[in-house]
Amino acid sequence: MPELRRDSITNTWVIIATERSKRPSDFAPPKEANGEAKDRPDNCPFCPGHEQQTPPEVLAYREQGERDTPGWLVRVIPNKFPALSTEEDVESHTPAPSLYTAQTGAGVHEVIVESPEHHDSWADYGLDQATLALQAWAERYRDLRNDNRLAYAQIFVNHGSAAGASRAHPHSQLIATPMIPAKVMEELDGAAGYYREHKSCLYCTLAAAEIREESRLVSLSDDFLAFCPYASRFPMEIWILPRQHQADFAEITLSQIQELAGILRKVLRSLAFTAGDPPYNAVLHTLPYQGEGYEQSYHWHLEILPRLTTMAGFEWGTGMFINPTPPEEASRYLRKNPELNPNQQE
Amino acid sequence: MPELRRDSITNTWVIIATERSKRPSDFAPPKEANGEAKDRPDNCPFCPGHEQQTPPEVLAYREQGERDTPGWLVRVIPNKFPALSTEEDVESHTPAPSLYTAQTGAGVHEVIVESPEHHDSWADYGLDQATLALQAWAERYRDLRNDNRLAYAQIFVNHGSAAGASRAHPHSQLIATPMIPAKVMEELDGAAGYYREHKSCLYCTLAAAEIREESRLVSLSDDFLAFCPYASRFPMEIWILPRQHQADFAEITLSQIQELAGILRKVLRSLAFTAGDPPYNAVLHTLPYQGEGYEQSYHWHLEILPRLTTMAGFEWGTGMFINPTPPEEASRYLRKNPELNPNQQE
Repeated sequence: MPELRRDSITNTWVIIATERSKRPSDFAPPKEANGEAKDRPDNCPFCPGHEQQTPPEVLAYREQGERDTPGWLVRVIPNKFPALSTEEDVESHTPAPSLYTAQTGAGVHEVIVESPEHHDSWADYGLDQATLALQAWAERYRDLRNDNRLAYAQIFVNHGSAAGASRAHPHSQLIATPMIPAKVMEELDGAAGYYREHKSCLYCTLAAAEIREESRLVSLSDDFLAFCPYASRFPMEIWILPRQHQADFAEITLSQIQELAGILRKVLRSLAFTAGDPPYNAVLHTLPYQGEGYEQSYHWHLEILPRLTTMAGFEWGTGMFINPTPPEEASRYLRKNPELNPNQQE
Repeated sequence: MPELRRDSITNTWVIIATERSKRPSDFAPPKEANGEAKDRPDNCPFCPGHEQQTPPEVLAYREQGERDTPGWLVRVIPNKFPALSTEEDVESHTPAPSLYTAQTGAGVHEVIVESPEHHDSWADYGLDQATLALQAWAERYRDLRNDNRLAYAQIFVNHGSAAGASRAHPHSQLIATPMIPAKVMEELDGAAGYYREHKSCLYCTLAAAEIREESRLVSLSDDFLAFCPYASRFPMEIWILPRQHQADFAEITLSQIQELAGILRKVLRSLAFTAGDPPYNAVLHTLPYQGEGYEQSYHWHLEILPRLTTMAGFEWGTGMFINPTPPEEASRYLRKNPELNPNQQE
């Protein structure tokens, strides 16, 4: 069973994923990347007709058909090799206090198969498909809130094998953890500090400033903005924020989901077009399930992190990133997609 | 000129490296990795005979020859495309306070060419070569302390292109920053918290516990131990610590440098042997230049981070790592190298 272990210096937790256990010789040489060639529709467990190769679905939006048969448009399944296990209770076992703290790897790990089409991606989705995918995010996110073992849920997309995607079939994932991760607490506390000082949400202030400033803006709709953040860690990094204050992704309305789907697919199409379909991670940041007290100061958002540079020794040691593309330049390139802001072209 | 920008939420600094500026089309498709094929001794600026292709050396250990000519064993040069610039003064310019904080990218970026041999690596170095390489680390580290613009120096090795090495010729790097990076402060504060509570250094306690416990130990010498940390983020992650308290890498003695060189090359040979010469980052963690007050609680060490897994959306969002290889298993594999602890084989 998976085990959560705490680093005694930084209080960061690590998942020792015994379900995915590997001997040193099991690690594929990273250079070959032959995974993708072998990953074809006929042997893809996420493709329609192969529903029996996955655990039973926990949610599906279908045009037709029975549970666990073809006819679905979006399908959510438990991960067959979960990083955290649904069956565990949360319980700590500490061999020697403070230096070695562990707890059972209780949690949830689900896969959202975003489309029945093996070769689809966010840059290809129609508006309806994109909307259904995000609707599944919201529905699973809301549902898991009822499991009171869970403190936080991380929803994310890994696009391309260099960004950690082990399968080509388009999918996102949800991993829910029994604690609020240290990095999430850091962000909550940073925003809370600003709130105490200014009596306003840092993200709301930032959204207004980026719209006014324009130079880093990528796209603007009634309820959302997309921009390249001032301190971008990655070339072409893009954040999408709701323009009105909303701490918790669970509060998103159906019409907002549709609008977010529209902006997300256009922005990702623009990224694919501008930088040659680079690998990226899209990462949802939202109020934790156990996030009481941060409702005024926190603000959910989506971070798109293109993997055009490599995390190396300097970044591991300092946490500082070296970004060769200023965000003002990145946004100028991204805005060249005429779908974005037809009225705001340079 | 490079610019340092502060993320207003997390207080993390980013280097916008204009010296390395790239348009989106300049990013090599990550899959091709054809950089290595082109990187041969005849066109390698780090190979002997090509000294004029680099900026003039700031340090060299030589058997013979003049400055900036062949005959050196280790050669240190300023990076031709520095992430931070030596010529800048430290000065902040804040377009609009608190949301957008910037300062000039003042700092130092040097390359330590660790061997004249293009195809060498830590797994191949003889003891003398390894000792000279570490001696150059210590000498440059001590020397830059005199530049009072600098708050911290990060020394690191990137081995393999997947770990961020842009050149195959064996080298390490030193980047010195005008502030203590947030991630370094986090570690300093974590250790200081333990010190306040226990009146002892967390790392000294950990070293003694790992030697006693044995299950994660990789190698042990008079002054150093190498072990796989309890909360390893990466498969085969290895830390090397001095056994006696030493906060600052600058305090290392010549005989300790030689002993560290011995343990480091054996451990890295063992890693190469066990996991098929994987890419890795080796990252020195030490007391900052401006680290007053942390001398009792902090303890320098070297972290070796094999890049056998991929940083993906979950890790970016939460800072939690998923590691499929328990450290107890990793250390068992690594100890199979008979050079390590000849008297302690299982």
